[in-house]
Amino acid sequence: MNVDELDTPAVVCDLDKLGRNIRDMAARCRQIGIPLRSHTKSHKIPEIAHMQLASGAIGICCQKLGDAEVMVAAGIRDILVPYNVVGPIKVERLLRLARRAAMTVAVDSVDTAQGISEGARRLGGTVRVLIELDTGAHRCGVQSPQAALDLARKIVELPGIDFQGVMTYPSRADAKPFLDETVSLLRGDGIPVDVVSGGGTGHEAISKELGCTETRSGSYVWEGLSRVQNSGDLSDERCPLRIIVTVVSVPTENRIIVDGGIKTFTTFRTAPYGLCVEYPEIKMHAMSVEHGHVDVSGCSHRFRVGERLQWIPNHQEIALNMHDELVGYRGRQVEVVWPVAGRGKVK
Amino acid sequence: MNVDELDTPAVVCDLDKLGRNIRDMAARCRQIGIPLRSHTKSHKIPEIAHMQLASGAIGICCQKLGDAEVMVAAGIRDILVPYNVVGPIKVERLLRLARRAAMTVAVDSVDTAQGISEGARRLGGTVRVLIELDTGAHRCGVQSPQAALDLARKIVELPGIDFQGVMTYPSRADAKPFLDETVSLLRGDGIPVDVVSGGGTGHEAISKELGCTETRSGSYVWEGLSRVQNSGDLSDERCPLRIIVTVVSVPTENRIIVDGGIKTFTTFRTAPYGLCVEYPEIKMHAMSVEHGHVDVSGCSHRFRVGERLQWIPNHQEIALNMHDELVGYRGRQVEVVWPVAGRGKVK
Repeated sequence: MNVDELDTPAVVCDLDKLGRNIRDMAARCRQIGIPLRSHTKSHKIPEIAHMQLASGAIGICCQKLGDAEVMVAAGIRDILVPYNVVGPIKVERLLRLARRAAMTVAVDSVDTAQGISEGARRLGGTVRVLIELDTGAHRCGVQSPQAALDLARKIVELPGIDFQGVMTYPSRADAKPFLDETVSLLRGDGIPVDVVSGGGTGHEAISKELGCTETRSGSYVWEGLSRVQNSGDLSDERCPLRIIVTVVSVPTENRIIVDGGIKTFTTFRTAPYGLCVEYPEIKMHAMSVEHGHVDVSGCSHRFRVGERLQWIPNHQEIALNMHDELVGYRGRQVEVVWPVAGRGKVK
Repeated sequence: MNVDELDTPAVVCDLDKLGRNIRDMAARCRQIGIPLRSHTKSHKIPEIAHMQLASGAIGICCQKLGDAEVMVAAGIRDILVPYNVVGPIKVERLLRLARRAAMTVAVDSVDTAQGISEGARRLGGTVRVLIELDTGAHRCGVQSPQAALDLARKIVELPGIDFQGVMTYPSRADAKPFLDETVSLLRGDGIPVDVVSGGGTGHEAISKELGCTETRSGSYVWEGLSRVQNSGDLSDERCPLRIIVTVVSVPTENRIIVDGGIKTFTTFRTAPYGLCVEYPEIKMHAMSVEHGHVDVSGCSHRFRVGERLQWIPNHQEIALNMHDELVGYRGRQVEVVWPVAGRGKVK
């Protein structure tokens, strides 16, 4: 089947472009000399994770345990969940995974670490742990090298926990003093630091400069439009993911309505929502729940009901996460229909 | 099980509040004297649709055919899809549904109508059709009463189509001249107008004043926070849907991080994202994909890792649409776990 025969809205992916993005990032990390850990939250599709591992990634990241369960079930054996796993239900799930895969999690409090340790005591097993450092992102993470040392001293005493090192997000040049001092304090205290995990697509070289032992990158698979726009390059060559929609109404000369709205594209970022591949000059200026409202006043083409258009959404990861399936094609021929297996796994 | 034992993020619904919202709207429409057609896009859950029908709704609305397929499979037999059904794949699906239920669709072009008619000729069956009028919403719809007449004249000639009347959205007082003139032009031309469908939660009385034969309302089941905020009433009494999250990090005195972000709440509207039921003074000022960043500087409570909080999202329909399950409870006891059966059915 040709992708142009699929019913719409259809979320489709150019497999050649996807493969190139995966190979290019692997090559970039090899050249820099930084091991790559691929973040799979960007796609939530096990086969794409396997493509990333086959290209040389040392393991994967999952942002939630539910994603990790999907990936372990698909045979992946080295997963970092850079997230505080809190509560007995989640700890039990984590320990179940840890029997089948090398599971590492981030913690930033003794409460989280103790919860994992208590679960391990009750249920058996060991979990690898990193301390998350807030080196400027103002999200999770301990606030100072001394706080990291205080927490590390407590964690290394806890049974069922294999303390591995530290992590931060994203890798920023100005994080170097924080990271260096933390590593030095811990090692000075006799606490081994085997892992220093940095991250953020585009931050691979900084991770290397910071002395990281690995860098976590995810969105490189899609090279989201916002990234391409930021780089000043509006070409669609690096964006494999598109949403094919159909024109369902041409109520006026200047307005067309397509069959995808908020529940197809999401409202991520502000209007215009995404980029039309065929007519970049038209603008999706508004969305209803299931309608896309497109201003075509800047375009000489006369649109007709039934016409199909390809759209690159503002954020390919967030838009894909609305859908149950991703259709992979090569030369317009459908090659694979992937379930978005981790979609909705927010627990 | 108590809802407070559910793993998080958990999307839960107070069944007493939901039932009251459904009964109140049914009573309101009876009092006004306008038949109610419940729009199920707000929940996508067949059992809630059945509750709406049991309370007196004359039928339901589905915004997409995929939703309608779910509802027909659940035994519902009168469905309006106020949407242009375009393309042979969708027309075939529509005709399959029309063998099992009274299916009505909206059209605003002869292209859409011809597509349905050609499908009916090929596959058999009849579809009820309304002409959509753009009475000021600037979305779909013909632009004038004369355009409605021109289209109606063509549609009544098409085999496989049972022309029923007109629809608009939302019901606005200033739509009366457009509606009156359209109905008068059509009837004057010998074209029967049995249905005049208006809509929009809160527009029931206007639908009556406009002379509508039914009014479509959907979001009344949740009474979204934005609506409550608009009415100046910040109480949670009319909002049945909540997302229970867990505090996973307390990195500073003024910041907590909860385990739901963009993929749990969506970025619909701007920050602050939703309302915390227990501490309305705290603000979710930012979200990452899986983290909610909450400013607690205005609150004297000392938060701790593992604490659970209930959140009313900015748009309950849009947030629910991210999730596969809705847990219904009464008196905190879980009474039902509903699959969000229409979620992702954007085709």
